Amino acid sequence: MKNQQIPYKTYLEFNEIPKQWYNLRADMKNKPAPLLNPGTHQPMKAEELAPVFCEELIKQELDNDTPYFDIPDEIYEFYQMFRPSPLVRAYFLEKKLGTPAKIYYKFEGNNTSGSHKLNSAVAQAYYAKKQGLKGVTTETGAGQWGTALSMACSFFGLDCKVYMVKVSYEQKPFRREVMRTYGASVVPSPSNETNIGRKINAEHPGTTGSLGCAISEAVEVATSTPGYRYVLGSVLNQVLLHQSIIGLETKAALDKLGEKADIIIGCAGGGSNLGGLIAPFMGEKLRGEADYRIIAVEPASCPSLTRGVYAYDFCDTGMVCPLAKMYTLGSDFIPAPNHAGGLRYHGMSSILSQLYDDGLMEAVSAKQTDVFEAAELFARVEGILPAPESSHAIKAAVDEALKCKETGEEKTIVFGLTGTGYFDMVAYEKFHDGKMDDYIPTDEELAAYREKLPKID
Amino acid sequence: MKNQQIPYKTYLEFNEIPKQWYNLRADMKNKPAPLLNPGTHQPMKAEELAPVFCEELIKQELDNDTPYFDIPDEIYEFYQMFRPSPLVRAYFLEKKLGTPAKIYYKFEGNNTSGSHKLNSAVAQAYYAKKQGLKGVTTETGAGQWGTALSMACSFFGLDCKVYMVKVSYEQKPFRREVMRTYGASVVPSPSNETNIGRKINAEHPGTTGSLGCAISEAVEVATSTPGYRYVLGSVLNQVLLHQSIIGLETKAALDKLGEKADIIIGCAGGGSNLGGLIAPFMGEKLRGEADYRIIAVEPASCPSLTRGVYAYDFCDTGMVCPLAKMYTLGSDFIPAPNHAGGLRYHGMSSILSQLYDDGLMEAVSAKQTDVFEAAELFARVEGILPAPESSHAIKAAVDEALKCKETGEEKTIVFGLTGTGYFDMVAYEKFHDGKMDDYIPTDEELAAYREKLPKID
Repeated sequence: MKNQQIPYKTYLEFNEIPKQWYNLRADMKNKPAPLLNPGTHQPMKAEELAPVFCEELIKQELDNDTPYFDIPDEIYEFYQMFRPSPLVRAYFLEKKLGTPAKIYYKFEGNNTSGSHKLNSAVAQAYYAKKQGLKGVTTETGAGQWGTALSMACSFFGLDCKVYMVKVSYEQKPFRREVMRTYGASVVPSPSNETNIGRKINAEHPGTTGSLGCAISEAVEVATSTPGYRYVLGSVLNQVLLHQSIIGLETKAALDKLGEKADIIIGCAGGGSNLGGLIAPFMGEKLRGEADYRIIAVEPASCPSLTRGVYAYDFCDTGMVCPLAKMYTLGSDFIPAPNHAGGLRYHGMSSILSQLYDDGLMEAVSAKQTDVFEAAELFARVEGILPAPESSHAIKAAVDEALKCKETGEEKTIVFGLTGTGYFDMVAYEKFHDGKMDDYIPTDEELAAYREKLPKID
Repeated sequence: MKNQQIPYKTYLEFNEIPKQWYNLRADMKNKPAPLLNPGTHQPMKAEELAPVFCEELIKQELDNDTPYFDIPDEIYEFYQMFRPSPLVRAYFLEKKLGTPAKIYYKFEGNNTSGSHKLNSAVAQAYYAKKQGLKGVTTETGAGQWGTALSMACSFFGLDCKVYMVKVSYEQKPFRREVMRTYGASVVPSPSNETNIGRKINAEHPGTTGSLGCAISEAVEVATSTPGYRYVLGSVLNQVLLHQSIIGLETKAALDKLGEKADIIIGCAGGGSNLGGLIAPFMGEKLRGEADYRIIAVEPASCPSLTRGVYAYDFCDTGMVCPLAKMYTLGSDFIPAPNHAGGLRYHGMSSILSQLYDDGLMEAVSAKQTDVFEAAELFARVEGILPAPESSHAIKAAVDEALKCKETGEEKTIVFGLTGTGYFDMVAYEKFHDGKMDDYIPTDEELAAYREKLPKID
């Protein structure tokens, strides 16, 4: 063991951290559908997006052609705090499963935000500061994005206001305190501070909130407060661009080890981790240089890819944002209150939606209790207590590894371990106490949400 | 910045992780005083310790001469889960302070136990398993040790029963759930499950507990249950031996970078981190090969080195353990309930006590609110939310760096960042809300505790 060839953990050297982000869209034959103006149904122009987003980020959002973007020095410097992240060979998990498969995971949780979200948060905060803004608003579900943005804003000296989905706010009392340590203000959503929040509270008394609703609140405040813009931690093209650093590092580490992935697995909520993890691999696939099985794993309680439709929809409950074409459950969809953790967005990144529609990736869904079972198994052998979100990928990786056990195939499985579950102990407690259930929406429920989709020619 | 010489983070290569622990005692001219039998006041023999501790660990405990111990393969393999830990150059903190000093910290918090405690937990669990035991008992204060032991026991298939100081149990509700994820059972101490627990509860109704009391309970259960032994996460010689891996890695990384430390700083409760961090440096100092300033930082509310006496004392409240010669406040001492986090033990490792008494290291104390102020400053620039314990070292490192700013000296300061504060948000919240105070025991109070010290010739 002391003289093995492939180490448990592979860290790139400092100067091997990628210096450019990779824009997957440049290699897509079928480009993701453009954002539409909700009034005119015409593609959004940069100037229409300017009241909501930072200028530089709008350029990144709309650019389907430039393959690489330089990472600015200030962002690269911040990345040194928590990057490179390790690529871990899951020897202990392989042994436990008795599989001939080789399992690797890219662990993005070794930072105070507890997840990969910091990769995009620092970029978005940097561009906001560069534009001379005073502050930003955002929403957060499980809390990782809000924490990441708080850290980045604190570093660059920006105000940060976070609308946190009420159910998470209540399930994760300490997340708020972490954000506060970094100087952010945190409001449970729907709040009574905004027009849309008051409307939703009136129409759905006792609602536990949703990302779509929190987005509407954050956008309302950003667009009505001088010197503020709105930032978003997932779904958008710009976010996937920033998150490409996950995949680029993963690819570089595998190359160093002389390994080639067969299957790449990521959990999928809005798509920020999955889109980042698969970017360079999907790029090779699109360019015909290599082939990979790529698997998105989503919660059975919020199954946008596996049970949604590919259509233009509102990005938020309040319908104040541009329309996006995506696999969606409908912007009113809210997962059952027993759904723990993140991955609760009603839609999926336009980039990933297009790739999925083109048959370039697969999608599976996982039941919550199965996910926590995989999480506990993983924690006990690999030593890391995973976030519920990340555990969806663990569940699928375990399933694929067990298939290899049956067939005897020595496949190389790579999955994204997006974060840690230190702030998810209420959910773990429910699981331990046998109080966690698996509510899966019925076909009738999903159909009712679909009826409210906007009609776009 | 992209081409700088010294990276933000230095990881040793996989095969550079030390393969032996270093036993500092071998180089000490004045050996630490032996444990005494509480009845006879004679040095404890191995066979007297055998009902309490594992055999192999007793050998390590009593060996003052062997300089190096091989790390068994199984432990080395487990270390791959979370080692090497990074040595971080605190560029951001240096810039914030405007100091000419170079600041490095060895970050031991990147694992689910949240601290360095895992280094010894895995060793102790391994030797217990090797001896064929069924399980182990222990105490935990802030919860890191209990979590670390739970993880190690789960890995090796041992039962694990943790007596958790009641105030921590209440302040850190989610710690229990993490331990439970790893299959441990956790009992708030003093409990009503043991003779000593019932006695303490009767004599001190409403007590919030202490490490000394939790130790007594754990020892009582271990010695009265067949197939069980007691394990301890700090204070003991064996623990400092295991923790020497911190210092060995730190030294190896500094050597790689061509750096020499001037000042080495560690927080000190029972001494596990400090003793491990300084081991190879102190070894050089003892052998006359190099000189270093070595600074222990303890809480002003639990000041065993700075305000205690060097004397034989009980290790636990129930007086069931051997006597140890150490800087101590008296085994009845319990820090004020507002004291947050760990570093709440009444005494200090015999090794460190002897070194301190010999003038080979310094000690300072820090007030709680100053510690949290340093913690928040650190979190905002370095990105890591530190544990309250670790933040004592941050506070002292900042003070030394500011002295360098005044004098213009370019000293190299190395401190131990033992862990993360993700489970300490109740304490952070108090700090943010201005509800944290700084109770410092009076001379009269300390004198009263001292009067109860055992009389040893």
